[in-house]
Amino acid sequence: MFDTPQTMEQLRLVAGRLLEYLQSADDRSCSVVDYRSPQDIEALFESMGLPLLPGQAQPARLYEAVSQVLELAVRTEHPRFFNQSFAGADPVSVVADWLVTTINTTAATYEMSPLPTLMERSIVRAFAKKVGFTTCDGIMGPGGSLSNLMALQLARHHKKPSARQAGDFTRWAVFISAQAHYSMKKSVVLMGLGEDALIPVPCDAAGQMMPDALERALGNTDREPLAIVGTAGTTVLGAFDPLAALAKVAQSHDVWFHVDGCHGASVLFSDRYRHLMDGAEQADSLAWNPHKMSGVAQQCSLLLVKHPTLLQDTFATGASYLFQKDKLFTEYDSGDKTILCGRRADALKLWLTWLVRGDEGFGMRIDHVFGLASHLRHRLESDPRFQIVAPPSFTHTCFWWVPPALRPLDLATLSDQERLGLHGIAPKIKRQMQAEGSTMMSYQPLGDLPNFFRWLFINPATTTEDIDALIEIIDRYGMQSLD
Amino acid sequence: MFDTPQTMEQLRLVAGRLLEYLQSADDRSCSVVDYRSPQDIEALFESMGLPLLPGQAQPARLYEAVSQVLELAVRTEHPRFFNQSFAGADPVSVVADWLVTTINTTAATYEMSPLPTLMERSIVRAFAKKVGFTTCDGIMGPGGSLSNLMALQLARHHKKPSARQAGDFTRWAVFISAQAHYSMKKSVVLMGLGEDALIPVPCDAAGQMMPDALERALGNTDREPLAIVGTAGTTVLGAFDPLAALAKVAQSHDVWFHVDGCHGASVLFSDRYRHLMDGAEQADSLAWNPHKMSGVAQQCSLLLVKHPTLLQDTFATGASYLFQKDKLFTEYDSGDKTILCGRRADALKLWLTWLVRGDEGFGMRIDHVFGLASHLRHRLESDPRFQIVAPPSFTHTCFWWVPPALRPLDLATLSDQERLGLHGIAPKIKRQMQAEGSTMMSYQPLGDLPNFFRWLFINPATTTEDIDALIEIIDRYGMQSLD
Repeated sequence: MFDTPQTMEQLRLVAGRLLEYLQSADDRSCSVVDYRSPQDIEALFESMGLPLLPGQAQPARLYEAVSQVLELAVRTEHPRFFNQSFAGADPVSVVADWLVTTINTTAATYEMSPLPTLMERSIVRAFAKKVGFTTCDGIMGPGGSLSNLMALQLARHHKKPSARQAGDFTRWAVFISAQAHYSMKKSVVLMGLGEDALIPVPCDAAGQMMPDALERALGNTDREPLAIVGTAGTTVLGAFDPLAALAKVAQSHDVWFHVDGCHGASVLFSDRYRHLMDGAEQADSLAWNPHKMSGVAQQCSLLLVKHPTLLQDTFATGASYLFQKDKLFTEYDSGDKTILCGRRADALKLWLTWLVRGDEGFGMRIDHVFGLASHLRHRLESDPRFQIVAPPSFTHTCFWWVPPALRPLDLATLSDQERLGLHGIAPKIKRQMQAEGSTMMSYQPLGDLPNFFRWLFINPATTTEDIDALIEIIDRYGMQSLD
Repeated sequence: MFDTPQTMEQLRLVAGRLLEYLQSADDRSCSVVDYRSPQDIEALFESMGLPLLPGQAQPARLYEAVSQVLELAVRTEHPRFFNQSFAGADPVSVVADWLVTTINTTAATYEMSPLPTLMERSIVRAFAKKVGFTTCDGIMGPGGSLSNLMALQLARHHKKPSARQAGDFTRWAVFISAQAHYSMKKSVVLMGLGEDALIPVPCDAAGQMMPDALERALGNTDREPLAIVGTAGTTVLGAFDPLAALAKVAQSHDVWFHVDGCHGASVLFSDRYRHLMDGAEQADSLAWNPHKMSGVAQQCSLLLVKHPTLLQDTFATGASYLFQKDKLFTEYDSGDKTILCGRRADALKLWLTWLVRGDEGFGMRIDHVFGLASHLRHRLESDPRFQIVAPPSFTHTCFWWVPPALRPLDLATLSDQERLGLHGIAPKIKRQMQAEGSTMMSYQPLGDLPNFFRWLFINPATTTEDIDALIEIIDRYGMQSLD
């Protein structure tokens, strides 16, 4: 009814254009972004006769529209893109994800996704071995926030299975790093626990949760402990909480121990850095996002659980239209182990990427970017134009560009106005980055610290030459920001 | 570091193979499925030297592995695939989704996704107009289960904003159709309300929730009403609840009214069938999955909300590393309106599909499949080999194949053994469908009714000839099942 030869021809052209885009991903002559205002973009599409408000069919304009989308896209595969905790997607995983879309199925049942189902099971087993779980189950899903949410729900069901039927009226406490990801807050609100249930535990200067502070926090609350969440790779500083020490506290208090390793658990593939995850093997659950440091195309998230039947016990509702036990091989069905119904067969893309790259390829990505981070730190430490914010962790380096008048930077001696000035510099530098499209990097405040840049490495195409060049560019933007 | 010419060459080959697959989607000489046991599949991959447990890099095997995946995939785009409430993905949307993956970004911020952000806003406005909302906000996400979950959380925050901070200790009641989707159950458990909070309201013979029964249910509970959920297109019978009548009840009790239109809201694009959604304009929120009846590649879901600031009020946590207000155009950022963090730019694929097909194309899909359903019903009604289960709705026809000895079927007169025999026939027929790969169709029990088939139409490539041919095939399998 729809698939005219003209349409198929356009699709072939689009596919060719996408392959070109992938092939040019590391082309430094391209801008990272062609940054436009909403008004500019609307006007541009209007002028092309492609109004953003959909309605009228324009069957012949697909290729043109796709080209325009690519022109205006942030090039996250560019070697000088550092704005997020993902970058430089592996082109193998990108095309593997095309496959996922092409077969357009749901990973809910073996019947619909025989191969993805088996691949997901294999991935769970292989990754559990890396972590050091001797028993396991696991489920993939669209993002780490959902993995963390589901982990807390597992903890609740484990501790209080009656809540499933009767509802939950307990005043719980969830202990997290003061620098944990904001999905923890979203989770406790959604679960009905309220933000008051979150107990942020203080961190040391490097951003690691302090185990003695955790002990004190447990002693100081009259709430019932539901879970302790250790973060392996915090969002801003990249800190790894001392997992073994946290596990010990969790065990002594008989509390669920979840590791949010969305960002950091990829280090398990590196012989040199896997020690950062020591203690994770004692967790009850662990979240990992291969779409971050391992470069798998988004979304790709895995929740690993030590208790083999708990996902099913916690989430299954046994819908009779979908999970009929009189069908074949239903013991393989995974769809009732999640809060979703339809679910993309993400296992396919992770499996294919893992097949092509192997443990070794995933490990090389990690070792390479740790090397880049080390290079950057050596450069910044010896450069009076910059000041490092906190002891660097992982591949993160957080830093201020320091105006000449404030060098060497001593925050304690700044006047309120100088502090405010410093706080305003990162946004100005960032706007210049966007205007020139030379790079993208995120900045943020932390506690009462003024805005600083977070430079983290993920993309294997980034080189030390990129770093050296960008240091000078940032300095130039910094000087311009004073004008 | 990774992108060797050999890799890129493999990716080109894979892309070509995927395009071929799309082009042959309606090829009736292909099987719908080449169904294998888990053991067979494992042995097959083992024999190819591609063990399912990942680890060792096999860089040269990508194309081969992808080909094998395609061989074993269920062909959901095949005109004789009827197993799920999605089918026949529009190839335009499939390739548009490739684009989403290729730019590998997150829809959280305008900074990262300028164009998808604007497209999502346009889609929300355009769809709100179709529904009849005069004020609106909306957010896309990976699946209708999450949309329904978020709608209930909106209702909670609307009614009791203090729960966000302090937690929720209210004994709520959520009123749903007795035939509502199981995501409602998953939602109330996750939110801490417990299954006891769900009040299933009885349906009539066609599967529509009865408004007077809803009134009675509201009067009979000592719980506090949180929400009334109308279903537009139930999973099994395809029923549309009487939305206008339910809205009236909701208004008179001052209760949130959510419409789960994941399956059915696509009828809004058909002038002929949009009346099925009458009353939806009075809802507080509405969930729509374009990946079902509108044929957009999975996942593609939209939650529409009538209250313009409520998504932000309910879900935002204002993480300072991501949603900094000193960046440009942050008033466009959508990422804090959801429970997710990273989010695929699904707006892109919906927008591009809508651009190419227009309202008219989406409408044609609907009209075509209603026509198919009408053909099937006429055929089955006059055929003694079949018995229709319930008054047909939407494009669903639920039916039994009746063994000769039981014709004409009268359930009331069946012995226990005859009933059990009938219950066992659908699974046997289904196994034969899978073994021959001739079609796929789902069966289920409902209440105390024996297993029956649900035949629903979604794919625009399906024809009345397919229906006529499959009726005979099902009869053949039925006769074989008696052997």
